[in-house]
Amino acid sequence: MKLATLRNADGTTEAVRVDGTTATRLGASDVGSLLSQPGWRDSAETAAGAAVDLGDAAYAPVVTRPGKVVCVGLNYRNHILEMGRDLPEFPTLFSKFADTLIGAHDDIQRPVETDEFDWECELAVVIGATVRRATTAEAEAAIAGFATLNDITARDWQFRTREWLQGKNWEATTPVGPWLVTPDELPGGVRPTLAIRTEIDGEVVQEDSTGDLLFDPVALVEYVSTMVTLRPGDLIATGTPGGVGHARKPARYLTAGQKVVTEVEGLGRCENVVVDDGPRR
Amino acid sequence: MKLATLRNADGTTEAVRVDGTTATRLGASDVGSLLSQPGWRDSAETAAGAAVDLGDAAYAPVVTRPGKVVCVGLNYRNHILEMGRDLPEFPTLFSKFADTLIGAHDDIQRPVETDEFDWECELAVVIGATVRRATTAEAEAAIAGFATLNDITARDWQFRTREWLQGKNWEATTPVGPWLVTPDELPGGVRPTLAIRTEIDGEVVQEDSTGDLLFDPVALVEYVSTMVTLRPGDLIATGTPGGVGHARKPARYLTAGQKVVTEVEGLGRCENVVVDDGPRR
Repeated sequence: MKLATLRNADGTTEAVRVDGTTATRLGASDVGSLLSQPGWRDSAETAAGAAVDLGDAAYAPVVTRPGKVVCVGLNYRNHILEMGRDLPEFPTLFSKFADTLIGAHDDIQRPVETDEFDWECELAVVIGATVRRATTAEAEAAIAGFATLNDITARDWQFRTREWLQGKNWEATTPVGPWLVTPDELPGGVRPTLAIRTEIDGEVVQEDSTGDLLFDPVALVEYVSTMVTLRPGDLIATGTPGGVGHARKPARYLTAGQKVVTEVEGLGRCENVVVDDGPRR
Repeated sequence: MKLATLRNADGTTEAVRVDGTTATRLGASDVGSLLSQPGWRDSAETAAGAAVDLGDAAYAPVVTRPGKVVCVGLNYRNHILEMGRDLPEFPTLFSKFADTLIGAHDDIQRPVETDEFDWECELAVVIGATVRRATTAEAEAAIAGFATLNDITARDWQFRTREWLQGKNWEATTPVGPWLVTPDELPGGVRPTLAIRTEIDGEVVQEDSTGDLLFDPVALVEYVSTMVTLRPGDLIATGTPGGVGHARKPARYLTAGQKVVTEVEGLGRCENVVVDDGPRR
């Protein structure tokens, strides 16, 4: 099953089940709100509401205002080893505010304050239950599904201080979508093995497999929920493979007009154009 | 003016104006919701609703579910210099999830997973307007008021990886309250100069002045809003002075049964008892 959040003409949003080229309205304001309803899997699967043509649909972030967006640093085994680092014992975690999120086809707002605007294609986990100190079985059951996320980063701000937050939290920079895909549709289920790829103006710049994740989605739900309750609609961005612009020789960064496509196999593509965003004063 | 969020017997919360030993109901579910209403200053000042006796009031976090809790690292000038560091050019930022917050008199849940549970008394800024790329004047006007916050930290988890998030985000560990005090009641207004102090079982362990902040509240609103929109109810915890347990020789950490009092002059005290919190399985 695929679930998406669409924007309506009146500025509201609504959750839908994607059925190929059409979708079915589910009576919830977004996928996060849907996931908060007990029995959401059954009710979404059996819903037979009004149909929407997806041809001209406007995708909002799959979850419009997640309570948490937990992000993971170095997590692709090959990339860590090729950088000459030891495999870490614990995941490195930071977070994004909900204001960073945009839809799968929205423009990425490149702030004039950065000269080093970079891409990071990631597998995002969408939480579908309330869990704290989850066992492995509880963590598996708490995963509603997966989506593609582009953890766009201002590298100059990321490295201004020793904490990454200020490189990772620019308004309207982080596409997530176009939809959530439930684990039953994916090879590997809650530990999916999927090709992951970024293209800039048609050139492939990142390419790997989510099977290379050091800390897999279930392990991350267990780890994060040790410290804090995970709730329906919370997101975990699981980290990016090699091939980011900052690590290239010479380094490459995004500029206005470029088209960035991030794709995780079976989860659909985020296709976003970079536009300049400056001070309003 | 002082504003607080109280817990009702039925599990709901409500915003009140504190008038000495009684309080006046303001018809909003919490201070964050109140601050989202246009003209909140006037309506809160002139409200004449039902009175509540504060004698047995149960304080919720001043804002129950802030959209952002932005935290600042090293920010007290004397403390940075005494540690032999240079004054930084930019503030170090990390964040807390809303699930970490508790009321001014709630128990602090000490997780069994940490052996290094530490205190950090801080001046918290409460945002009262929507601002992005705020000018100095806009930043000053966006500060609704201030509260006391204790940024309790699991040091062993903070230093597991290079990002601090996992030391700072344990459920129900971060008192904030008891109330918000508006800048007009404070010496220095939106850049207040106030004594800041922590006591453990009556022993003073931190003592400084918020006048020693390197990045003051207005500068922090300007800086954070450069990257992302600040909204009513968002919190900025401005950092802690010297005297934390981890920096002592020998190091000292919190244990169950201890009473922790954090106080910023004129903002009231958080008085919290540490209790053990273990896995439910």
